[in-house]
Amino acid sequence: MAISRKIQESIKSASWIRRIFEEGRERKAKYGAENVFDFSLGNPNLEPPPKFKQVLKELINDPSPGQHAYMLNAGIVKTRQAVADHLNELGGTRFTADEIIMTVGAGGALNVVFKTILNPGEEVIIPKPYFVEYDNYLDNHQGLSRLVGSRQDFSLDFDAISEAITEKTKAVLINSPNNPTGNVYHEAELKELAGVLTHYSEKLGQPIYLISDEPYRRIAYDGVTIPCIFELYNESFVVTSFSKDLSIPGERIGYVAAHPDISDKKMIMTGLSLCNRTLGYTNAPAFMQRAICHLLEDSVDISIYQKKRDMLCDGLASFGYDFIKPKGAFYLFPRTPVEDDFVFMRALQEENILTVPGSGFGGPGHIRIAYCVSDETIEKAMPGFERVMKKY
Amino acid sequence: MAISRKIQESIKSASWIRRIFEEGRERKAKYGAENVFDFSLGNPNLEPPPKFKQVLKELINDPSPGQHAYMLNAGIVKTRQAVADHLNELGGTRFTADEIIMTVGAGGALNVVFKTILNPGEEVIIPKPYFVEYDNYLDNHQGLSRLVGSRQDFSLDFDAISEAITEKTKAVLINSPNNPTGNVYHEAELKELAGVLTHYSEKLGQPIYLISDEPYRRIAYDGVTIPCIFELYNESFVVTSFSKDLSIPGERIGYVAAHPDISDKKMIMTGLSLCNRTLGYTNAPAFMQRAICHLLEDSVDISIYQKKRDMLCDGLASFGYDFIKPKGAFYLFPRTPVEDDFVFMRALQEENILTVPGSGFGGPGHIRIAYCVSDETIEKAMPGFERVMKKY
Repeated sequence: MAISRKIQESIKSASWIRRIFEEGRERKAKYGAENVFDFSLGNPNLEPPPKFKQVLKELINDPSPGQHAYMLNAGIVKTRQAVADHLNELGGTRFTADEIIMTVGAGGALNVVFKTILNPGEEVIIPKPYFVEYDNYLDNHQGLSRLVGSRQDFSLDFDAISEAITEKTKAVLINSPNNPTGNVYHEAELKELAGVLTHYSEKLGQPIYLISDEPYRRIAYDGVTIPCIFELYNESFVVTSFSKDLSIPGERIGYVAAHPDISDKKMIMTGLSLCNRTLGYTNAPAFMQRAICHLLEDSVDISIYQKKRDMLCDGLASFGYDFIKPKGAFYLFPRTPVEDDFVFMRALQEENILTVPGSGFGGPGHIRIAYCVSDETIEKAMPGFERVMKKY
Repeated sequence: MAISRKIQESIKSASWIRRIFEEGRERKAKYGAENVFDFSLGNPNLEPPPKFKQVLKELINDPSPGQHAYMLNAGIVKTRQAVADHLNELGGTRFTADEIIMTVGAGGALNVVFKTILNPGEEVIIPKPYFVEYDNYLDNHQGLSRLVGSRQDFSLDFDAISEAITEKTKAVLINSPNNPTGNVYHEAELKELAGVLTHYSEKLGQPIYLISDEPYRRIAYDGVTIPCIFELYNESFVVTSFSKDLSIPGERIGYVAAHPDISDKKMIMTGLSLCNRTLGYTNAPAFMQRAICHLLEDSVDISIYQKKRDMLCDGLASFGYDFIKPKGAFYLFPRTPVEDDFVFMRALQEENILTVPGSGFGGPGHIRIAYCVSDETIEKAMPGFERVMKKY
């Protein structure tokens, strides 16, 4: 076979998750899509806020030339300035357009950061459970993920993080609100993390970066505050997208923000911009860059997701499911009553309820339930969730 | 410095080209943008065809849900089917949606192909002069470019290609119409190339792929035909974008098509789709995928570029410039009357004419003039072009 050996391996090792999705498709074909309750995908079911379409319409009617042309690889200056202004409202830092690079989603943003900072074999510490696509992104740049456990309540385990730090450590990557747990890190926790990183950065003689992946920042419940890492640690990047808060994941629009006081800022920003180009992204899609410029204060109605969370949590709790109520994002990560999460996933599958085993997120003994689905799906799946729990 | 050593090197080694662009900006600030004649960028000056805006408007008024949602990583099936139908009209092959992957421009498409096929250290043969960004794309996947010379008229040098083939050779990459030369490969030439590749593939016991980068396919002059490689060689990929023919390079929309009879097709298509995801692209921008579905037969008015080419060529010929008249794309690649193309580029710069030295394209002793600019820019630059040539 003439294709890359690594890709052949990746295809083989991803076959179990593909098989789960195929089985789901087969069930939908067999029983009718309306009778299969698909909680397996983080594809938001809400439509974008109405203002999104309005903004697109206005942009199309704008007669100024060059709207779909190439631009600086870092993106449209007006949009980057709008993002900077938005960040300045969130926290106490002072951003300018110079510290913002518009990207092809948060996935593009992470790849651009990794490519810019990593030498081959260098490591990024990631608390488990985690979004395993990070491993692929790191591998693209010959970096390695160094996974560390979290505490029972999914909060940061500082002993584990400290023990994992070596001279190969380039960064710590956090994701809050979290996929797959829905956990949110508190400010005190992030302050402690900043302290640990400052300590070891000094010891190593070079910064350990903090990279915060924040696509779910706006999807937070019960008035919980998502702390701004820029107020806590200078050697930091935020990567994010508008996929979840505007429900436009297919459009691939996001950004990287580097701390205004990050060391070697000029070199880093030049590197990020260069990598945005050389990785083949070139620049973030122009039309969406122009659109989100007017949508930085907007989002879907988060209370709808909160209601879904409550429906799901109330139901599952009454059936005896064991979980930590999510503070954000749209995932629930209950413990499985049997050790093997595949067994439990399969039992749910028999009830036409599709979930993903926690093993797919470095969190065996759990399942991930993505509740960015219709209320009807949640309601109709309840009896199945109950029957499966009763079996164990 | 904590950033990647390779990126530090890239920033340093790219500094000369950045310096040229900075000097251009400085000149524009000093003399006024209208008095600086910028032929340095391949950023099309034409607006997209009017139908583009119409299509976008119609899409926005379409009330069907999920238009901006995630999709298969390969892209929207309807769009892929439309691309397949379009390819079937061009040539004698029979495509289906299964052989098409929608990508973030041709840059995304090339990275997806390279990642799918290359093992570390494997080589891709590229005829010079060439678009040097290919080197970066190959390096992303630990591949290497193996540059080979072309004949004086920019046609393929089969001896050079044959000599470059080793057991490390994974593919040959061609670009026709070509950036920076405007050259178009004839059918007989590509048939001969297919013969060479078939011969060596058999000898090596595995296919040497032919990758054809075709973003300028529609920008061809004087009724010249751009042969379809799919009719000539089974182990082939076309990568392309809508950036140039629709003048929407900022939107990042393109595709990969793999030959319907390529070996190991299922594994290759799975690999391309997987890499589209894992490289952080996830999928091509949804809105533009839906738009180009209705624009496959459309393009900007190519005769406008042809007129610009003629204006430029007629003028420069009369001043004694030595060049091959381009058959396509919007670049002219004249020989410099002094050996050092930087010296000639600087002399033009003194006349406020901005070009790029051929050295930046593996073609020293030339300059690249991108004539996707206003007629006025071409006209006004003529006296400067004449004065500089008179000096030599």
